[in-house]
Amino acid sequence: MKVLITGIDGYSGWPLALHLLRRGHEVVGIDNFVTRKRVKEVGSWSATPIASFPKRQEAVKKHLGKSIQFYKGDMTKFPFVVDVVRREKPDAIVHLAEQRSAPYSMIDVDHAVLTQVENITGTLHLLYAIREAAPETHLVKMGTMGEYGTPAIDIPEGFFEVDYHGKHDRLPFPRQAGSWYHWSKVFDSGDVMFATKIWGLKATDVMQGVIYGTRTPEITDDALLTRFDFDETWGTALNRFAVEAVLGLPITPYGRGGQIRGFIALEDSVQSLRIAVENPPKVSEYRVFNQFDAAYSVNDLAELTHRVARDLGLNPRIEHPPDPRVEAEQHTYNPIHEHLPALGYKRTRNLEEVLREIFRDLIRFRRRLEAKRHVVLPTVDWRAADNTGKLTARAHPTMGVPAPPAPGTPPAPSTPDASHTTA
Amino acid sequence: MKVLITGIDGYSGWPLALHLLRRGHEVVGIDNFVTRKRVKEVGSWSATPIASFPKRQEAVKKHLGKSIQFYKGDMTKFPFVVDVVRREKPDAIVHLAEQRSAPYSMIDVDHAVLTQVENITGTLHLLYAIREAAPETHLVKMGTMGEYGTPAIDIPEGFFEVDYHGKHDRLPFPRQAGSWYHWSKVFDSGDVMFATKIWGLKATDVMQGVIYGTRTPEITDDALLTRFDFDETWGTALNRFAVEAVLGLPITPYGRGGQIRGFIALEDSVQSLRIAVENPPKVSEYRVFNQFDAAYSVNDLAELTHRVARDLGLNPRIEHPPDPRVEAEQHTYNPIHEHLPALGYKRTRNLEEVLREIFRDLIRFRRRLEAKRHVVLPTVDWRAADNTGKLTARAHPTMGVPAPPAPGTPPAPSTPDASHTTA
Repeated sequence: MKVLITGIDGYSGWPLALHLLRRGHEVVGIDNFVTRKRVKEVGSWSATPIASFPKRQEAVKKHLGKSIQFYKGDMTKFPFVVDVVRREKPDAIVHLAEQRSAPYSMIDVDHAVLTQVENITGTLHLLYAIREAAPETHLVKMGTMGEYGTPAIDIPEGFFEVDYHGKHDRLPFPRQAGSWYHWSKVFDSGDVMFATKIWGLKATDVMQGVIYGTRTPEITDDALLTRFDFDETWGTALNRFAVEAVLGLPITPYGRGGQIRGFIALEDSVQSLRIAVENPPKVSEYRVFNQFDAAYSVNDLAELTHRVARDLGLNPRIEHPPDPRVEAEQHTYNPIHEHLPALGYKRTRNLEEVLREIFRDLIRFRRRLEAKRHVVLPTVDWRAADNTGKLTARAHPTMGVPAPPAPGTPPAPSTPDASHTTA
Repeated sequence: MKVLITGIDGYSGWPLALHLLRRGHEVVGIDNFVTRKRVKEVGSWSATPIASFPKRQEAVKKHLGKSIQFYKGDMTKFPFVVDVVRREKPDAIVHLAEQRSAPYSMIDVDHAVLTQVENITGTLHLLYAIREAAPETHLVKMGTMGEYGTPAIDIPEGFFEVDYHGKHDRLPFPRQAGSWYHWSKVFDSGDVMFATKIWGLKATDVMQGVIYGTRTPEITDDALLTRFDFDETWGTALNRFAVEAVLGLPITPYGRGGQIRGFIALEDSVQSLRIAVENPPKVSEYRVFNQFDAAYSVNDLAELTHRVARDLGLNPRIEHPPDPRVEAEQHTYNPIHEHLPALGYKRTRNLEEVLREIFRDLIRFRRRLEAKRHVVLPTVDWRAADNTGKLTARAHPTMGVPAPPAPGTPPAPSTPDASHTTA
């Protein structure tokens, strides 16, 4: 099959490209490299050194004997999007090209607007491009488990059967997102569901859990490494806990640490997306996959990180700073995930084993973490309307970078986030 | 109380301003006059001749002895929005300044993006402006009954109690909107609910039914008239049926005509919004009002229009062109509306009486309808991805205006729309 990956340069997009190529599929990519730029803007970089895209293409040629057709451009430009879709007429499009950081969306009004506007515009452009230029194309669109929030009832896969006042219907499951970013994903889900209905498109909406890991079997050389973010804005809680442990900082679950989220290994996430691509829905079908293997609380992650770190001779401690997010710190969490297993999905990795692999890579690239130690500092309080001042100080180092914390400085809270799954 | 009305120049905004002034409230307004401009772009105008805003202000001075502080500007400019909110610190903001036409949003990709981007940007700007400059302000935000779609179960006011797999929760009611415009209102609802939760704001989300009528008791002079749209893009089904009858065109309910929507008279809609303003919610409360009196099918509207028209000596006939929308043409519809009556809301007008009033105004301004007879023609097919060509021909008359239909030309279908309720 021919698969177009938007956001091919990102954390998930790149390993997905490698995996699809190895499975014999043809891969076409779009990216505008804005994540590389925005991570630099907050003063950070990927823990793993990542090659430029031309170098990535060369490495693919060398190690897999394949080539990737690439289009540099922006999903907010409709002529660009429709031209690529018209020229390539892919069997499937995996849409990963969105602003994917919840903390970034919470910085201030401009970041809130940017996140929602960019994400819904890109998705609308893709929907119209498919409708106009390749209506047979299957759209695989990324949502997040965070769309559902943390209701007290089970979380089905997108839709549920409801009895109410003696009547019955099958309805979309209510969404209660927890950041402007998560709401942008809810909005995309609405638009994709509607386009499927009015135009007879085929779509899979993947509610991704938090993805963890640095490696997939296809990453056989450093030139093929994917990015791994660890700063407050772009890193997940687990990534940050591991980096804190490596840097000798305390591991810092927010608040009581009872916040539970669904998780999946990078390799298994890539497997899921490949299965979605290889098993397209019917015409007019809008289906939803809950994509995760197991649910962990933030405390589970902190304790596991602590144990693995000690095994590796590190000596971290756990601290609980107040939660800057607005979220339940203790709650039930029971999402259902049956659609992917029904199509042959099988879990291949477990969290502890992957965490050991992450630590190996982080220790190997420790100097890259040391150089960015100060970006683990907290800056964005979700209750505040405007965090710009703090971000500006960081975005423009000459205007006053916070110094690396002196010994005895209070530790930096990390950011548990169910959303950092796409590029 | 001091009330800021965004979109004060619009169909609802203007009569609301007059009513609040007469009730002794202070009124401040924002508008950018984009609806006047966009209605002109599709070659149409208001059936009722409306005064310029300075002339409206003069008439208010003359007839009510009051003045309106007015700010011309755009909700998509955050500095403008926050400056007005900071300067005025209103007790309530009634937010009507949105792109409010479903057919307009369905024209092509650019109109889809414009509608969703403008609407969510304006609402986000207002939320941040309130948070920053006047956190005590009560936000009265317009939704639409169209957010809910037409589920087979009862439609509660925003939230419902659900039992599922043996567990229980109170959740937002699922939304299934029927156009990019209606989805933009769903998205606004999500953002307002979230802001209320994280910042402790006070918000009322008003799910408006279709509003009908040309008059409120405060409109005592032609200089105080509000706009009344009847073209395919900006008019509601009822407005268009009445205009068709006056122009001697067939009355044209789409498809089987079993599409049911909730309706409310302009005067009672204004009453509802005033009641919401005078009874603010508590801090952190996000409440939802379903604002309508009675549900009618499109056939009900067509038959009533037919009967009233005959009483007035007109001789219309009813035709059923195919439905260009994607919607159920027969369905159950049972929305609940108890919150407003509990606060003292009482219906004062009924549909037939108001329809006779509409006919009196339309007959009086018949020459304005005759001059725009051609804009009742259908152009936007909701199944098509791009209707631009047709719209362009109309938007730029020198490029080729469709001629008024010759005798015997097939009649123009009208657009039933549950959304044309805000300015």
